[in-house]
Amino acid sequence: MPRFFTDTVNGGTITVTGDDARHIGRSLRMKVGDDITFCNSGVDYICRIESISDSEVVCSVTESFPTKSEPSVMLTLYQALPKLDKLELIIQKTTELGVSRIVPFLSKRCVARPDKKEFDKKLERLRKISLEAAKQAGRGIVPEIAPLMSFDEAVCDMQGSDIKIICYENEGKKLYDAGIDGSKSIAVMIGSEGGFERGEVDKAVSAGAVPVWLGKRILRCETCPIAVSAIIMNLSGNM
Amino acid sequence: MPRFFTDTVNGGTITVTGDDARHIGRSLRMKVGDDITFCNSGVDYICRIESISDSEVVCSVTESFPTKSEPSVMLTLYQALPKLDKLELIIQKTTELGVSRIVPFLSKRCVARPDKKEFDKKLERLRKISLEAAKQAGRGIVPEIAPLMSFDEAVCDMQGSDIKIICYENEGKKLYDAGIDGSKSIAVMIGSEGGFERGEVDKAVSAGAVPVWLGKRILRCETCPIAVSAIIMNLSGNM
Repeated sequence: MPRFFTDTVNGGTITVTGDDARHIGRSLRMKVGDDITFCNSGVDYICRIESISDSEVVCSVTESFPTKSEPSVMLTLYQALPKLDKLELIIQKTTELGVSRIVPFLSKRCVARPDKKEFDKKLERLRKISLEAAKQAGRGIVPEIAPLMSFDEAVCDMQGSDIKIICYENEGKKLYDAGIDGSKSIAVMIGSEGGFERGEVDKAVSAGAVPVWLGKRILRCETCPIAVSAIIMNLSGNM
Repeated sequence: MPRFFTDTVNGGTITVTGDDARHIGRSLRMKVGDDITFCNSGVDYICRIESISDSEVVCSVTESFPTKSEPSVMLTLYQALPKLDKLELIIQKTTELGVSRIVPFLSKRCVARPDKKEFDKKLERLRKISLEAAKQAGRGIVPEIAPLMSFDEAVCDMQGSDIKIICYENEGKKLYDAGIDGSKSIAVMIGSEGGFERGEVDKAVSAGAVPVWLGKRILRCETCPIAVSAIIMNLSGNM
C-alpha cells in the first residue's frame, strides 16, 4: 500500500496538497475508494481516499496504530561535516537503518567549513533525502536533519542521550562493550574525512562519551556511520 | 607508510613495474632509501627502495609479518546482481569492512541479466574497485571478485563455508542467532533489488543455509550487504 508522511491529522480526516497530491493522483493513478497509509510522528493511519484532484486528496482514517518498523532505541548521529555527496549517502543509508536524528557539526579537521547560514541553504535538499529514504524504508518518522552545530554545541546536545559514544580511530572500546544493551537513547559522534583530533576526543570523553574503536581496517568516513548504525541496531535487537 | 599489493615476492626482493612503479616515483615522489610496505596474501613486507625509475622500482625486504588488519573470519558475500553502480558501492564498502570474496550471481528477480561472457568484461573494473578499497582500508588481501554464477552454482559454492546464511525479507532468525560466533568461514547470500523468491530461499535452506531477517525496515539492496558485513564483523569480534 502506498505510504506517505503527513504533518496534520484532523480528527478522522487527512488532507494532502502539493507534490504528494499530484503524486497520488497522477503518478500512482490512485482513485476514490483506494487504501493508502499516512504516517505522522510514529503512528500509521490506514486511510481510504474520499476525493481526489491534482491539487488535493481527502482521505478518511479507517485504522491507526504505532508504526511497526520504528526501532526501540532512539539513535542520534552527530556527523562531522564531510563532502556533501558523502553526507547525502550517510543520510540516506542511516535513515534506512533506523536513526532518529542526524546532527551535522564542524570539527577541527573538516575541510568544508560553511557558516551556519550557508549550510541552512543545503538543509532543504538534505531533508528531502531523509524524507525519501524514510518513505522507502517504511519508517514511522522522518529523521530530523539538524542545522549545523559547532563541536561544543554538538557535545552539549549529546547530553540528552543515555549513552554517548565517540568513534576514534586510535583507541577505544569495542561497540559491544559500550553499554548499548537496554539503552533507550544513544548518541554517536563520528568524524569527517580527517577524523578527530585527540583534544576533541578528550573533550567528548570529559562530557561523558565512551570512545569506541572500530578495528584495524581504515573505513572511509561515510562507511563508518553506516556500519555503526547497523551494528547498534543489531546490538539493541532492532536488526 | 605507502602501501601496495604485489603478486610476487622473490626471496628478499620485491620488484614493481607498470602503474604502481610510476605512482611510487612520480605521484608519491619516493626516493632510494625510503620505506614502503608491500602486501602479498595476507603478509606485510616492510621494504626499503633500492632503485627507482618510471618503469621499475626494486625494493629489499627488511621485515615481514601477517597483516594486522585482516579479520579472523573469512566472509564470502554471494550478491544477486543489482545495477552496476550499486554493485560497485557494495564492493567498495564490503571490502573496507573485511569481506574475503564477493560472488555475483543471477537470481530470478535480477533485472540486468548479462551472460557470463558479457559480465567477464566488467570484472576488470570491479576488481580495480576492490583493489583500491583494499589499499585504502589497509587490507592484507584484495577480496576476489568471482565471475558471474547461476543461483544453483552459488548455492553449491557456499558449501565450502562453515555457516551459510540467506537474507530474506519475509522471515528468518536474527543475525545474532545465526550461529556466527566462533565460525571460521561464513557465506552470506543477499538478493538484488527485487529480493528472493520463496523457492530460492527454500533451495538455499535445503542446502544448509539459515534464513536471516534484517527487521522491519526495508533496506535498499545495496544497504543490506554493507549492514550485514558490519554486523558480522562486530559479532565475530572483528569490529
